[in-house]
Amino acid sequence: VSAPEFTLTILGSGGALPVPGKYPSSQYLQYRNQGYLIDAGEGVQVQLARFGISHSRIDHIFITHLHGDHYLGLMGLLFSMHLTRRLSALHIHCHPGLEDIILLQLKMARSVLSYRIHFNPLQEGVSGIIFENDDLTVSTFPLRHRVPCSGFLFREKLLPWKIIKDKMPDQMRLQDIALLKQGKDVVDDLGNIVYRADAHATPPPPPRSYAYCSDTDFDPAVAASVKGVTLLYHEATFAESESVRARETFHSTAREAATIARMAGAGKLLIGHISARYKGTEVLLEEARAVFPETEVALDGHSHKVEPQPLRQTAE
Amino acid sequence: VSAPEFTLTILGSGGALPVPGKYPSSQYLQYRNQGYLIDAGEGVQVQLARFGISHSRIDHIFITHLHGDHYLGLMGLLFSMHLTRRLSALHIHCHPGLEDIILLQLKMARSVLSYRIHFNPLQEGVSGIIFENDDLTVSTFPLRHRVPCSGFLFREKLLPWKIIKDKMPDQMRLQDIALLKQGKDVVDDLGNIVYRADAHATPPPPPRSYAYCSDTDFDPAVAASVKGVTLLYHEATFAESESVRARETFHSTAREAATIARMAGAGKLLIGHISARYKGTEVLLEEARAVFPETEVALDGHSHKVEPQPLRQTAE
Repeated sequence: VSAPEFTLTILGSGGALPVPGKYPSSQYLQYRNQGYLIDAGEGVQVQLARFGISHSRIDHIFITHLHGDHYLGLMGLLFSMHLTRRLSALHIHCHPGLEDIILLQLKMARSVLSYRIHFNPLQEGVSGIIFENDDLTVSTFPLRHRVPCSGFLFREKLLPWKIIKDKMPDQMRLQDIALLKQGKDVVDDLGNIVYRADAHATPPPPPRSYAYCSDTDFDPAVAASVKGVTLLYHEATFAESESVRARETFHSTAREAATIARMAGAGKLLIGHISARYKGTEVLLEEARAVFPETEVALDGHSHKVEPQPLRQTAE
Repeated sequence: VSAPEFTLTILGSGGALPVPGKYPSSQYLQYRNQGYLIDAGEGVQVQLARFGISHSRIDHIFITHLHGDHYLGLMGLLFSMHLTRRLSALHIHCHPGLEDIILLQLKMARSVLSYRIHFNPLQEGVSGIIFENDDLTVSTFPLRHRVPCSGFLFREKLLPWKIIKDKMPDQMRLQDIALLKQGKDVVDDLGNIVYRADAHATPPPPPRSYAYCSDTDFDPAVAASVKGVTLLYHEATFAESESVRARETFHSTAREAATIARMAGAGKLLIGHISARYKGTEVLLEEARAVFPETEVALDGHSHKVEPQPLRQTAE
C-alpha cells in the first residue's frame, strides 16, 4: 500500500544575494501528477529544466511576497510557457502588486500570451483556504516581513479507507463499499450495524502536509498556523550571533526556525534562505538541531518526500 | 606600444528560449578599467560572477529593447548592487518603459536603493551619440523589431600621436609636444613649420569600435549605421531555411547577418541569439561564412578583443 506521491524539490535555496550553486527561493511540490510552483526566484525556469521538471505540469503558482529574490524568475517562465505554446490557464496566487508588474511587462513587450492567467490576490494578514481540488487544500497564513508576506500550507485530503478484500462478503453492495471507504459503518433500516468499518477496512494514514515559510520574523503565530505539519520549510537567514540583525530585517535565525518547528509539533524541518555571509551551514544546522533534531538544510536539486518521520531508535 | 584594453565578454548568447549553457542576451564590454553592460537577460548577475567580473565596475547599462530575454536579469542585478551597498550613480540607457518597470518593482518591494539611477531614454527610430567620456563615444541607431529597438556603437576616441623620443629636440616646449600629440605641425609666428608632426611623432592606430545589434529584421540601414566597425555582433536567430519565419518575427538569418557585416565593411562578425531549435550551429556558421568569412559564433564566457583583423594570407 503506497501513498500517492507527495514530493518537494528545492529549485533554489539561497538568500537575497546569489551564491554559486544556490539559486534564489523557489520550490516545486508534486502531488500525484500535479505540480505546484512555490516562489519563483531568478533562474527558476533553468532550474526546472536542470532537474527534469516540465513547466507544462504547473497550473498553480504561489508567490509569498514581492521581494525580488522570490519572484524575479516568474516573468521569464511566463514568456517561455508562451513560446512553447501553452494553452491551459495558469493560476497565480500572489499579493496584488505582482499582477501590475506582470501586466506592465507584457504591455511593454507588446505580447499577448497564448494562455490565460488568473490572478488570485492574497490579502495581507488574512488566513484561509485559497485553493482546493480532489487531492489537496492549499491555505495561506500571514508571515511577518517588511512587505505583505504569506506562507502556504498544502494539506492532502483524507484518503479513502482501504477495503480488506479477504473480509469482503460477496453480497456487499457498491453503496456499502462506498460507506466503508469513508470509514462509516453500514447500518440497516433499523439502525443495526451490518458491517463495521474497522472490521472490513483499514483506515488511511493521517493526511500529510507541507508548509512553506519563505521570509519571516520569528512569530509564534506561524507555529499555530502550521500545527502538526508533516514537513516544514522555514527560512533561517541568520545564525544566533546575528539575532539583532534578524529582528532589524524581519528574518529568523536557525534556532528560531527550529523553535517554530518544535512549537508546531512538525515532523521535519528544512531550513534555507541562509545569508550569503555564511560559507558553511554547520553552525546554523547545529543551532537548529539543538532545539529540533529533525532538521535539514535545503539544497538546490534535493528532493524530500512529504511523509511522517520513522520512530527514532532510543539509544540503549 | 599596446593599445588600451578593449574587450567584449559574452555573458549570454542564447535566444528567447533558454538552452543549457546559453543564457539569454547579455554582454560585458571593457575599455581600460571601465565596464559597460549591454542587455541584461535573466541570470546576468550570476554570469558576471561566474566570469569574475565585479558589477561595481559597471556605471552604464545599455538595454536595446523590452523583450524579456534582453532585460529580465536587470532587476536582480540592481537589487544586488543595493545589497552590496553601491553608492555611485548608475546610468541606464533604455527605452522609456523600462523606467516604469523598475520603479514599479522598487515600489512593491518598498525599497529605496543605496544609489541613484539616472535613466537616459532612447527614442524610437532616432540615431545619435548618447554618451561620451575621455575614451569613448557611444551612439545608438535604430534596429527593426516588433517593439522599439536600438543598437549601440562603442567607438574609441582617437588616441594621441606618439612622440618619437630620439627625434625630440631638447628645447621643445610643452605646448609644442601637445600640438604634436594631436598630430599638428608646430609653426612659428610667421607660419613657418618648425616641427612637422609626421617627422617627430607617429600617428595612432585608427579608432576601434564595437557594434551590438541584438534583435533585428534584415535592414541595410543597419550596415550604414555601423560602417567600418571593427567588431560587429549581429543576431542570427535563424538558418536560411527559415527565412520566411525570420521576416514574420522581425529577426535575421545568419546569411543576412553576414550580409550586413559585408555591406558595413566590418572587421569581424559575431553571430548569436540562435534559436533553440538548432542543436548545432554549424549550418548557420557555414551560411554566414559563405558571405563573410570572418564570422564566429558567440558563446557564453568567451571574450573577444576589439582589434583589427590581421591581413589574410593569400593562398599560393
